Amino acid sequence: MAMVKMAVVGATGAVGREMLKVLEERDFPVGELVCLADPKEEGNRVKFKDEDVIVRGASPEAFSGIDIVLLAVASEISEALAPEAVKRGCVVIDNSYAFRLREGVPLVVPEVNAGDVGQHQGIIANPNCSTIIMVVAVNPIHQAAGIKRIVVSTYQAVSGAGILGIEELTRQTRAALEEREEKPEVFQYPIAFNLIPHIDTFQENGYTKEEMKMVWETRKIMHLPDLRVSPTTVRVPVYRSHSESINIETERKISAEEARGILAKAPGVVVQDDPGAGVYPMPLYTSFRDEVFVGRIREDVSVERGLNLWVAADQIRKGAATNAVQIAEIVVRENLF
Amino acid sequence: MAMVKMAVVGATGAVGREMLKVLEERDFPVGELVCLADPKEEGNRVKFKDEDVIVRGASPEAFSGIDIVLLAVASEISEALAPEAVKRGCVVIDNSYAFRLREGVPLVVPEVNAGDVGQHQGIIANPNCSTIIMVVAVNPIHQAAGIKRIVVSTYQAVSGAGILGIEELTRQTRAALEEREEKPEVFQYPIAFNLIPHIDTFQENGYTKEEMKMVWETRKIMHLPDLRVSPTTVRVPVYRSHSESINIETERKISAEEARGILAKAPGVVVQDDPGAGVYPMPLYTSFRDEVFVGRIREDVSVERGLNLWVAADQIRKGAATNAVQIAEIVVRENLF
Repeated sequence: MAMVKMAVVGATGAVGREMLKVLEERDFPVGELVCLADPKEEGNRVKFKDEDVIVRGASPEAFSGIDIVLLAVASEISEALAPEAVKRGCVVIDNSYAFRLREGVPLVVPEVNAGDVGQHQGIIANPNCSTIIMVVAVNPIHQAAGIKRIVVSTYQAVSGAGILGIEELTRQTRAALEEREEKPEVFQYPIAFNLIPHIDTFQENGYTKEEMKMVWETRKIMHLPDLRVSPTTVRVPVYRSHSESINIETERKISAEEARGILAKAPGVVVQDDPGAGVYPMPLYTSFRDEVFVGRIREDVSVERGLNLWVAADQIRKGAATNAVQIAEIVVRENLF
Repeated sequence: MAMVKMAVVGATGAVGREMLKVLEERDFPVGELVCLADPKEEGNRVKFKDEDVIVRGASPEAFSGIDIVLLAVASEISEALAPEAVKRGCVVIDNSYAFRLREGVPLVVPEVNAGDVGQHQGIIANPNCSTIIMVVAVNPIHQAAGIKRIVVSTYQAVSGAGILGIEELTRQTRAALEEREEKPEVFQYPIAFNLIPHIDTFQENGYTKEEMKMVWETRKIMHLPDLRVSPTTVRVPVYRSHSESINIETERKISAEEARGILAKAPGVVVQDDPGAGVYPMPLYTSFRDEVFVGRIREDVSVERGLNLWVAADQIRKGAATNAVQIAEIVVRENLF
């Protein structure tokens, strides 16, 4: 396999650091690696294969000669940088929301729509973390029985808000145990021993943008423009791994056993479903893993054709870094530069 | 109002102690108070109106001369004690699961079916905590628009497992912050910074008993034997107050604004719903309160006639102690001995 000249932008953030780890673990054919970040991070170091890589300030010129750019930065920065990278002949895999719904930009979860990668015009978008986790679990069910409607409630880890979110949970938990108050900075309210039903901004319809991303992005990834999805997204005091309670109505009847069999063979899915023996997914144990863990698979008692699933997965790995690197692997393997 | 001779059984537990507080706060006409518990707790003291009450071992004879017995003990103990109390002329309000679904035993949430209290034959059952919280919020919607189906995912506090549950969360959180492991005793797995999708035992249909209680008890309380409900119940690292993400399909279209207006006037409900201004229910702030807090009220984008609600309430107060005392108030007020 040809060696690839890579740039990782946002290399010092939670997702950027994880991208470097995943590139290394999966033996991605990195020929050259450029690590970029906010100019104020210039000179900092990040690890790649036991070597220190010096971080440079991100600028359009830094993309010259690069084959694939992994962008793990805020939407506004992606908006500015991605076209510059494309102009210089790079393929950009962007983790932000900026390009996800744009026409001509494939939005890809390799287990679901790997084939879309080939249609890119320079930019391929990496979906929202909660969306990735959900579609990996529900797409096999859709293939088998047709999905009519999804009602999903999420239990989202603080690392969805990056390293600062992790630090805030630790700081506030210590404070709460000592009966001190500690002002929230990352989240809207204290997150220690609390739940916050508010992720991203509120839209006119009363849903948050995080919730509507799960509607819009799921439709695009699954090629089901009319799929009916109703999400509620909630921040919980968990460090890593998002969990989701997913209720599915299907076109055709599917038994829990059949669903279990289908999911057991589905790519990227691990079935953990022997509840009597205490086997079901939990975020503490699905962290630092690449798969989506599915359990509590049961036929819905409230409809004739329906299933409930309980899903957990590391949203920094499969929900972001691993998914982006998997897309890069397709680009390389199928020579889609 | 006549003064009432009361017995509280399980007076040293989380719910029993809260019952004493609620009796005091609501100025319940307590003429005489007997506090009972497991014989091994005999001689311990509990507080009532600034006085120390000495706890006695629970026995059938202890019920002689008592008007109302509040039972806050395990189902097996309720099974044994309740008939003995009834035999001695007491009205029993039982917080356990033992009698909830039995014919001739009213299962009561005063905001919903206060009228059922009068049909008692000695025992009145206090519903499951998650069920109480849900029906207070959804019954007003049912009255206005007719409920066809509910999909609910819970976020349940550790104090649902009593004082030991609270202690376990604190102990394990400290251990986790110090990177020590601390064996779980109350819960199946570590609960600090984790989620456990397992409350009560698993049934043959893959639901837990906690989940099926929400189906069976909701039907009985709301007098809707065919109501369709699909719950997923999850333990979260929160001390107090259960939260619920509730999706409702209605018979008739109801707008979010209409629902907000109806809930604002509903008994026992506080609407906290100005999400743009950061106003929505959170368990940290609904604890030690008697109301059910409802927010994130929005029309479901996935069906023509549906609503989403986010609900939080103190499950030891409204979910147990307060609800039991409210039932006792009806018994006294309407002289239903």
